[in-house]
Amino acid sequence: MKNIPLILMGCGGVGRQLLEHIVSCRSLHSTQGLCLRVVGVGDSKSLVVSDDLLNKGLDDSFLLQLCRVKSAGESLSKLCDFGECRAFGHPESEGKILEIASQLGRKTGLVLVDCSASFDTVVVLKQAIDMGCCAVLANKKPLTSSMEDFKKLFMYPRHIRHESTVGAGLPVIASLNRIICSGDPVHQIIGSLSGTLGYVMSEVEDGKPLSQVVKDAKSLGYTEPDPRDDLGGMDVARKALILARILGHQINLDSIKIESLYPKEMGPDIMTVEDFLDRGLSLLDKDIQARVEKAASNGNVLRYVCVIEGSRHLFLSSLHIVCEVGIQELPKNSPLGRLRGSDNVLEIYTRCYSKQPLVIQGAGAGNDTTAAGVLADIVDVQDLFS
Amino acid sequence: MKNIPLILMGCGGVGRQLLEHIVSCRSLHSTQGLCLRVVGVGDSKSLVVSDDLLNKGLDDSFLLQLCRVKSAGESLSKLCDFGECRAFGHPESEGKILEIASQLGRKTGLVLVDCSASFDTVVVLKQAIDMGCCAVLANKKPLTSSMEDFKKLFMYPRHIRHESTVGAGLPVIASLNRIICSGDPVHQIIGSLSGTLGYVMSEVEDGKPLSQVVKDAKSLGYTEPDPRDDLGGMDVARKALILARILGHQINLDSIKIESLYPKEMGPDIMTVEDFLDRGLSLLDKDIQARVEKAASNGNVLRYVCVIEGSRHLFLSSLHIVCEVGIQELPKNSPLGRLRGSDNVLEIYTRCYSKQPLVIQGAGAGNDTTAAGVLADIVDVQDLFS
Repeated sequence: MKNIPLILMGCGGVGRQLLEHIVSCRSLHSTQGLCLRVVGVGDSKSLVVSDDLLNKGLDDSFLLQLCRVKSAGESLSKLCDFGECRAFGHPESEGKILEIASQLGRKTGLVLVDCSASFDTVVVLKQAIDMGCCAVLANKKPLTSSMEDFKKLFMYPRHIRHESTVGAGLPVIASLNRIICSGDPVHQIIGSLSGTLGYVMSEVEDGKPLSQVVKDAKSLGYTEPDPRDDLGGMDVARKALILARILGHQINLDSIKIESLYPKEMGPDIMTVEDFLDRGLSLLDKDIQARVEKAASNGNVLRYVCVIEGSRHLFLSSLHIVCEVGIQELPKNSPLGRLRGSDNVLEIYTRCYSKQPLVIQGAGAGNDTTAAGVLADIVDVQDLFS
Repeated sequence: MKNIPLILMGCGGVGRQLLEHIVSCRSLHSTQGLCLRVVGVGDSKSLVVSDDLLNKGLDDSFLLQLCRVKSAGESLSKLCDFGECRAFGHPESEGKILEIASQLGRKTGLVLVDCSASFDTVVVLKQAIDMGCCAVLANKKPLTSSMEDFKKLFMYPRHIRHESTVGAGLPVIASLNRIICSGDPVHQIIGSLSGTLGYVMSEVEDGKPLSQVVKDAKSLGYTEPDPRDDLGGMDVARKALILARILGHQINLDSIKIESLYPKEMGPDIMTVEDFLDRGLSLLDKDIQARVEKAASNGNVLRYVCVIEGSRHLFLSSLHIVCEVGIQELPKNSPLGRLRGSDNVLEIYTRCYSKQPLVIQGAGAGNDTTAAGVLADIVDVQDLFS
């Protein structure tokens, strides 16, 4: 039986779902000769750690109890009442994770799983990787900070996995890595990687006013509490940056051209969410409508996409890199043009997929799907453990 | 630098393309800290082996020369004139491969790559795996023989990869394995996995007679020399069997319901290829046309697909397994219904992808693409090498 110890950082929706998946997959993984041993779970405030790090993990009833405590909005430290564990508060917790990493890193190996949405984990991740640990990320932020951080995280490329940073559990990163290492040069990636913006663009295509569509999307739970977090395109830009960096482009977030669906004067510093929804948005209806009609007159539709061109393998100079995020006119009869609703779609054009792209499509969001992608990554690093 | 020795069995179109990819990826793999060392290449008649197995591989100019010799239809044994190698004839060659496997297997590791189209490799593959070697297959046949063979080949599941057995380089197997190990139960897989039959079905949908479409496909090079090899569905059935077995179904080829597009009385034992094309096929036109029209009247189209239902994870008894191959009526507006031409499309329905499936689409044939899938598999087993 291969024993893989892991520490989970972040136990919001995705982290909790991951713990539940780990518990429910016990017998499945055992038939595969695997045992995932959760030795610690942390959030922004505390960390709970198994008493006997080398031999035991937190047991399953404890992990499920932990999920209930967190769902109820309570503190992790409350859990010391329930089992054989120790709790550490911030900032002590960070040092504790590194202590465990140095203890287990080169001995049994350790996977550090980042299901937070924080920039702060990058420091711990870098050091743990330096100590020989593996990292599995659903959190996009460490991968979209400086190029220097990115390089340190990928110091041992096989030790870091991050499928769920782009398209949740969709096999985007795994497929792209396969393409790259088989020497098939990537000419272009074009993708709709926001379920929210996918929904918005297919609804305005039907003639509905943008203002109405965004309000509908918000009431369906498709948007962030402030829909401008989706409409601004920053989340898509982070995903585009991750894809571009995988292709070998040494670029930063600020060199990506990002089209926002709302102007600066409707930004969060100037307008409240209510104001934006009630008054701001409707000022944008006419313009989007005109663009939809112009596209339709060309037999096209509008999609909010990321476009990345050229891989390192093509020996392009940095001048020829394209990495942008925004509205594009696309043929109605292409995989992206046919997209309806909140699915993600990625078209990858390479030497092998030159006229017709490789297409990956499916639900690209949701706690269940995102956690499934994280779990597949954890299982996939098993060969690095003895 | 991680050094991965490999032996290639089969150097037809795919095998030769693989050797060319390996040579052209030297610098790319070297930046990834990898060196693929081809220590032997064999076909059905002979095997050439590097003189210094432990330290050197056949060098790149030799490998390219080998590709030229094979392309010209000459024998591998001719190559002894060109470099530091030894040649072995059949049946000595099989013993030689096993000798190398026992020498390198547990020492440095060895990847046995099967790009043949033969049943005969299964004996060598099983023994090499037993000796700790890895296996990478583009050849479907070893995986579609008896369940006993299949189990032996998967004795160490991480040691065997076979992406290119289904959909060439499309990330079908890799994606399915990710889904399975994340505990996401697969409810249904439905796929068009024959470029030939994909082309045929989308052309007859347009009202063209089947007889004409098959002749066109043959002249476009889309079919086997005898198009009945495609039209009979056996190739799709092998792919379906591989997918079903990955899902945990312990079934054999003879338990798959296979619909042939031609009747027994037009089989190869009874009619020549010319007779079938000139006289037999046109007798089938009317029936297919009627089925196309009936489907259209329901808003559907016909596709030649494999359908597999239920995964081991759902604890279904073998009575509930569905694994069949044939023509199905599908909604015009589904990923499979929209398919045009020779792309492969796979729709996977799981808990995470329940209403809208996970869709993988792209070119599912061709030497270049198939070899790329094989190469990605070889690179992917690197963590098993020290």
